[in-house]
Amino acid sequence: MTKQFTRSDIDSLAQRFRANLINSLSGFKSATLVGSTNGQVNNLAIVSSIVHVGANPPLIGMIMRPHTVTRDTLSNIKQQGFYTLNHVSTEWVDKAHQTSARYAPEESEFDAVGLTPQFSESYSAPYVRESEIKMGLKVAQHFTLLNDTEMVIGEIQELFIPESIIDDDGYANIEQASSVCISGLDSYHSTTRIAQFSYAKPHVKLTTK
Amino acid sequence: MTKQFTRSDIDSLAQRFRANLINSLSGFKSATLVGSTNGQVNNLAIVSSIVHVGANPPLIGMIMRPHTVTRDTLSNIKQQGFYTLNHVSTEWVDKAHQTSARYAPEESEFDAVGLTPQFSESYSAPYVRESEIKMGLKVAQHFTLLNDTEMVIGEIQELFIPESIIDDDGYANIEQASSVCISGLDSYHSTTRIAQFSYAKPHVKLTTK
Repeated sequence: MTKQFTRSDIDSLAQRFRANLINSLSGFKSATLVGSTNGQVNNLAIVSSIVHVGANPPLIGMIMRPHTVTRDTLSNIKQQGFYTLNHVSTEWVDKAHQTSARYAPEESEFDAVGLTPQFSESYSAPYVRESEIKMGLKVAQHFTLLNDTEMVIGEIQELFIPESIIDDDGYANIEQASSVCISGLDSYHSTTRIAQFSYAKPHVKLTTK
Repeated sequence: MTKQFTRSDIDSLAQRFRANLINSLSGFKSATLVGSTNGQVNNLAIVSSIVHVGANPPLIGMIMRPHTVTRDTLSNIKQQGFYTLNHVSTEWVDKAHQTSARYAPEESEFDAVGLTPQFSESYSAPYVRESEIKMGLKVAQHFTLLNDTEMVIGEIQELFIPESIIDDDGYANIEQASSVCISGLDSYHSTTRIAQFSYAKPHVKLTTK
């Protein structure tokens, strides 16, 4: 049975109910840990608002709320200009979700949840050692959206990834790396490939790779 | 074996290889069909760049490339100010992917791939009848990003969703509705829930819902 919500139906919902419902509508989202530092404390925050912006130059965007639990992360990113993005694996989704608790500014979420900060030679922001796919980014653009959320677009500066999951055409099999996705605010999912399709052409039958 | 790519390694990759690799790094993405019209032709385009912007007001963003196959969709959205977002189901991922072929402007992707346009009483843009979760949106903000891609943020005006998948707290079980996700440019995945967690608090053991 299909339920129709008008805009005024949505506006009349209880705040928490509406937040859960609307957060479900954007579909499955990547589960990513953002690593950052203020020079003293290493912060780690889970985000589900990652979006591909471009491949050349390599750009990834994310949306953050300035006055919520990710405020330390956002402040570190603005101050330092660098941060890391780390894929969450099926084996430790609980630790990843626990980073969403509101820890005191002087507490490191790495220590609190039991994940390990790791530093590369060239990069000041902390990576997650346990993460199979991780990138270091430099802020490339930063602005405020109409509802006062902030969008940060970063340029990938370095990338660590298992060599075995990269196909001949460059596709990285992130399912094989046990990367997870999120629906709503708090549901974590593993994936099963249905199909990988070839480039689609008009009036030509689609083939799988 | 972990492979490290520096920024100059990434910049040296062949264009297609780089596009596939970088598109894999943003993790799993929602598979969504954008419905739009110019008043004569109903267009349908698959996008994987959907991002949650806010719940109150209900806002969803997406990133589009102005000079690619989605140019008709982008032009319709700018001209009309309205469009629909429709979740892709496991049963017809092939039809959804086929909308990415470069059809002539006068051809409707609905007809070409075998999906059915559906109109609500209050709304000019076409929905996908076969889609279980679908929304009508009005453009709320539109701007160009640093790499000349365009970000469109829409306000949800109406929503159609199976009543049975909405939990008591508002969470919509999109896995139950067979919504799929995408990795890279062309890989489609179904999901299996690992866990749904309760609200995380510092120094309190995480529980599942």
